[in-house]
Amino acid sequence: MHSFAITAPDRGMENSLKHKVDRKTKPPGSLGQLEALAVRIGLIQQTLTPSLDRPQMLVFAGDHGAAKAGVSAYPQDVTWQMVENFLAGGAAINVFCRQNGLGLSVVDAGVAHDFGGPREGLIDLKVAPGTANYLESPAMTAAQCAQAIEQGAGVVFGLAAAGCKVVGFGEMGIGNTASASLITHCLTGVPLADCVGRGTGLDDAGLARKQALLEQALTRYRVAGGGDDAFAVLAEFGGFEIATMVGAMLAAAEAKMVLLIDGFIVGSAALVAARLEPALLDYCVFCHRSAEPGHRAQLQALRAEPLLDLGLRLGEGTGAALAFPLAQAAVAFLNEMASFESAGVAG
Amino acid sequence: MHSFAITAPDRGMENSLKHKVDRKTKPPGSLGQLEALAVRIGLIQQTLTPSLDRPQMLVFAGDHGAAKAGVSAYPQDVTWQMVENFLAGGAAINVFCRQNGLGLSVVDAGVAHDFGGPREGLIDLKVAPGTANYLESPAMTAAQCAQAIEQGAGVVFGLAAAGCKVVGFGEMGIGNTASASLITHCLTGVPLADCVGRGTGLDDAGLARKQALLEQALTRYRVAGGGDDAFAVLAEFGGFEIATMVGAMLAAAEAKMVLLIDGFIVGSAALVAARLEPALLDYCVFCHRSAEPGHRAQLQALRAEPLLDLGLRLGEGTGAALAFPLAQAAVAFLNEMASFESAGVAG
Repeated sequence: MHSFAITAPDRGMENSLKHKVDRKTKPPGSLGQLEALAVRIGLIQQTLTPSLDRPQMLVFAGDHGAAKAGVSAYPQDVTWQMVENFLAGGAAINVFCRQNGLGLSVVDAGVAHDFGGPREGLIDLKVAPGTANYLESPAMTAAQCAQAIEQGAGVVFGLAAAGCKVVGFGEMGIGNTASASLITHCLTGVPLADCVGRGTGLDDAGLARKQALLEQALTRYRVAGGGDDAFAVLAEFGGFEIATMVGAMLAAAEAKMVLLIDGFIVGSAALVAARLEPALLDYCVFCHRSAEPGHRAQLQALRAEPLLDLGLRLGEGTGAALAFPLAQAAVAFLNEMASFESAGVAG
Repeated sequence: MHSFAITAPDRGMENSLKHKVDRKTKPPGSLGQLEALAVRIGLIQQTLTPSLDRPQMLVFAGDHGAAKAGVSAYPQDVTWQMVENFLAGGAAINVFCRQNGLGLSVVDAGVAHDFGGPREGLIDLKVAPGTANYLESPAMTAAQCAQAIEQGAGVVFGLAAAGCKVVGFGEMGIGNTASASLITHCLTGVPLADCVGRGTGLDDAGLARKQALLEQALTRYRVAGGGDDAFAVLAEFGGFEIATMVGAMLAAAEAKMVLLIDGFIVGSAALVAARLEPALLDYCVFCHRSAEPGHRAQLQALRAEPLLDLGLRLGEGTGAALAFPLAQAAVAFLNEMASFESAGVAG
């Protein structure tokens, strides 16, 4: 597997960035989280005048063998139907990317459907038509997991070569909150029950069934000797969309891009990627606090303070696309605001 | 004074709007606060396909007689210096309005400065060059307060005639967090100490001095027989920028526009306006939760749940300008997303 070379940004210019922020015509600190964000982006790009050129959203799609066991309120076919919706421009992520000026590509990481050859806007990186059912066996082999990571990295290295400085991460996959719950539990140690939620909208009985199924999957894994190694957990419970995203994130951090991290499922990929390469977190902007309860465990483990808290639980990268204007605002005030000196305002 | 005719939007089409939201290709409720916002804007405009045409930010500026008594960390001259900064395009509100496509006008409601005749981007509605010092006498006369309200309304009626459907409210005035604190206390009943904060950045000693001065102003008012009538409180403690904003808000609600409410000082104007015309609240979008502590009392009194919580405390309307893309997103998903039926997705 590709050996990623991810190093924390050099902090040598942190004071210069903070000084620039503090000389802007505003009370010190009065732009709150946007000030820290401006400094972060400046450090990532090692410049006092950062830019968020060619922003790109990547939506990773995959199917889950466990979906048919009843961990979701929706049938598995919704995964490919929603991919078609993305390609037709009708989903929420299409609307928000158009509105906020992000390019959008869909990555078929492992959807159980034949999309009929090359399609505009669709990148075919299908590892297999859906994972195995982790209630019975590991969701993927180690080789498949490594393949997914490699392929995800490849896409992002291509974006970087094309001048993309900021990449948003989104996903689609019926059953993938269940995968994210298992990954979150294994990597944070938070009890599984606190990592499991209603996903797309389970009722109480459905939630109880989902919890019981995930306990069963976890027991099988533990009995088989499974531990908390991030790669092993990813292969055991992950979707191909999550594994491909892990590779894309690692490549994005290596390429010193800004990573827009969406909610719970994207967060589970960030958790895996950060366990593999802790310096990755310096490149991440956590975009929103999901209504899915397990997201809290992730955010605590990653010490992340998201930008938005709107009760979103849609996925697709919608929280990242909605937060992107705030990242642009952070860069814009750093680049465009007058200083006390230049504006002739008493500081 | 103009008699405002503000009525709550007819709720007859609420179910149709909610049905439209629920048939979009997403789990029900999964866009969180944006769903309620879409319904709200649809009701305001009485249509299933709302639009936020010609968005305009109005920044109201005024000076405060009490500023020289030491209620702010900045000298009073910063008010006019910042107005010059707005006119030159160098302030945070300029940056965020440019970024998010809002027009921007500055209203001189009572700045203690001669701006030298008509200036592009500046609307001259100066009631007087600053209010009186409310430590000694009411900040303005009832006639001045009514004049400010009338003038503010006039500007917004002009915007409405020009096709503006959404107006953002911002302000600039050294000393105006002190005014907002007094107004908030009088109209909510929350103890004054819980309504007073550091404003532009007072240290502990400065905060204690501000609190003591505001207690003194309040005592003078109460001894003189002053009560909690919203208009009386506004005249007693308000700035001209706050009173002019009250008129602008009332007119905007009458014209059935969407009102983007910024933070603590704009919130004090919204509190006054809502006491005068309670139906105004149906037209308000509360944009962010300010770091200024008194904002909490306002939000509780108005039962408002803001969109952003980024630790902002800059004013100028920056929180409103930053939240505007979220209002656009609410409208865009309502108008542009496919339904389960149109996309062929299993619901």
